[in-house]
Amino acid sequence: MAGHEFDLIARYFAPLSRGAAMAFGLRDDAAALRPEAGHDLVITADAMIEDIHFRRTAGPGDIARKLLRVNLSDLAAKGARPIGYFLTVALPRSTPEDWLAAFAQGLAQDQEEFHLSLMGGDTTASPDRMAFSITAVGSLPTGQMILRGGAKPGDDVYVTGTVGDAAFGLMLEEGAAMAMDMAARSELLGRLHCPTPRVAAGQALRGLAHAAIDVSDGLAQDLGHIAHASGVAMTVEAARVPLSDAARQVLAVIPDGWERILGGGDDYEIAFTAPSARRDDVAALSKRCGLAMTRIGQVQEGTGVHVLDPSGAPMTLAHKGWQHF
Amino acid sequence: MAGHEFDLIARYFAPLSRGAAMAFGLRDDAAALRPEAGHDLVITADAMIEDIHFRRTAGPGDIARKLLRVNLSDLAAKGARPIGYFLTVALPRSTPEDWLAAFAQGLAQDQEEFHLSLMGGDTTASPDRMAFSITAVGSLPTGQMILRGGAKPGDDVYVTGTVGDAAFGLMLEEGAAMAMDMAARSELLGRLHCPTPRVAAGQALRGLAHAAIDVSDGLAQDLGHIAHASGVAMTVEAARVPLSDAARQVLAVIPDGWERILGGGDDYEIAFTAPSARRDDVAALSKRCGLAMTRIGQVQEGTGVHVLDPSGAPMTLAHKGWQHF
Repeated sequence: MAGHEFDLIARYFAPLSRGAAMAFGLRDDAAALRPEAGHDLVITADAMIEDIHFRRTAGPGDIARKLLRVNLSDLAAKGARPIGYFLTVALPRSTPEDWLAAFAQGLAQDQEEFHLSLMGGDTTASPDRMAFSITAVGSLPTGQMILRGGAKPGDDVYVTGTVGDAAFGLMLEEGAAMAMDMAARSELLGRLHCPTPRVAAGQALRGLAHAAIDVSDGLAQDLGHIAHASGVAMTVEAARVPLSDAARQVLAVIPDGWERILGGGDDYEIAFTAPSARRDDVAALSKRCGLAMTRIGQVQEGTGVHVLDPSGAPMTLAHKGWQHF
Repeated sequence: MAGHEFDLIARYFAPLSRGAAMAFGLRDDAAALRPEAGHDLVITADAMIEDIHFRRTAGPGDIARKLLRVNLSDLAAKGARPIGYFLTVALPRSTPEDWLAAFAQGLAQDQEEFHLSLMGGDTTASPDRMAFSITAVGSLPTGQMILRGGAKPGDDVYVTGTVGDAAFGLMLEEGAAMAMDMAARSELLGRLHCPTPRVAAGQALRGLAHAAIDVSDGLAQDLGHIAHASGVAMTVEAARVPLSDAARQVLAVIPDGWERILGGGDDYEIAFTAPSARRDDVAALSKRCGLAMTRIGQVQEGTGVHVLDPSGAPMTLAHKGWQHF
């Protein structure tokens, strides 16, 4: 890296803080924050480590955007509007400066799309692999954060968009040979590399969803977190799980497709529960957001997530989802 | 690592969140925060990477405590009272579980000492080196954050405690052979491995200090940040810089001692400026906090930090401080 931390911050990161007056142009050690009247701040943190969460070959712009979007997805699932983020960046000293420039450009692009600003952070060297963390800050009316623990027996279980695309994208990236059209292939890879956090839908779900989580570790496992935190059981019908046309192409030609759809992560859709008396409200919301919200199961008394395969028979998943260790 | 992320979180990290109701026992993806009435939140982030900021041989407890203390020092320099923190942890899969237990124990010990709670975070694998980040959250009365940019010509320049101990500790750790007593050696190493963030003093400086920064990158460089952000110049007299007895022992026997004292980092003292009309108030505060606050220079019109050596002659530092890249 040609240059000194403070020059790099001034050149590439300070411009990203322009929208955040209380970040003091990143010239200070800290930012001051206060929520608008009647609001809470919602804060979440995620790390991304080279060769665990991404390959350097993904390129600086996509790495930056996925890092930011993974955190925005957490805010979305809580019903929060994103306002800013703190970024730590550890890069090998050999990183070319134009890599950093492209990384910052990726952040700038997504800041504009999702209306938030860089508020602070830390830039440092790393001996070899890149390591990043983001702590994202959002806002919502006081007490209205959508928790994992609010699901109630009788609720319907929903998921936004389509599930399994990122898991199939990962298969393709890892070199799986498969007869499929190029558009479908590129769609699946796109879902993996540049997920779409459901920011507007998450906020619209406040006051309607009893519980929510973003699908990052795998649908079955993530629903398991809701079930565990809420002290309830769930039944999920594979036949109802929404699939993209691209995912259907893959599903038709591999044997363990449902394992991957239900156990793969990185889709960044929102899985949520809502009272069955409010099905019309969910349908109206789905229409208003232009985003599918598909009913895939039911909440019951008990524990655990029970998956029914497309024929309606109980299904045991060998891998319920992403293992962080 | 024997075990699954969620078990590890429950076992070692969830107990650290007990004081923070809005962290939901770390069972959620995010924490909800609101400052008490009339207060701002102050947020700062720092990363610590193995073989850049620490060696694994330092041991899990000291690594944990330094990670937390470095962030508490940033809050202290802004005048904020610590309330909580978000932690990302990336560990090789081979890390023994008792390493993680001792790491959590180190955090627990400092949480008790500094009255704050874990509020959230992320635990993940790393291919080889450990990587951590903390985003620390503090609180202070609205608008009272002590900035870097508030120094005014005519202000006195102060620093708390003693300076240079950590730099000399680093020399010792790197194997410098030196005739000195064991107590002094152990004191210098202690300053390096387990710094003391000036949490109470920092809060007491609100309304008195015009500008402040913690001494993390080196006194000359850190004062340079105040000078730059404030649009002023400073003169610092080496003869006035407060030294511990242990540091004096080292200074007596090495040729480049002043370079190391003024250019070395990691002391985590607070350097600040205050109006010269308030010298009595600073003296009273120093007494009340039981912490030396030594006047080491003056703020003037102009730019840059001008250091006078112990004889009063202008001194040029070869290395002004820690280079992050």
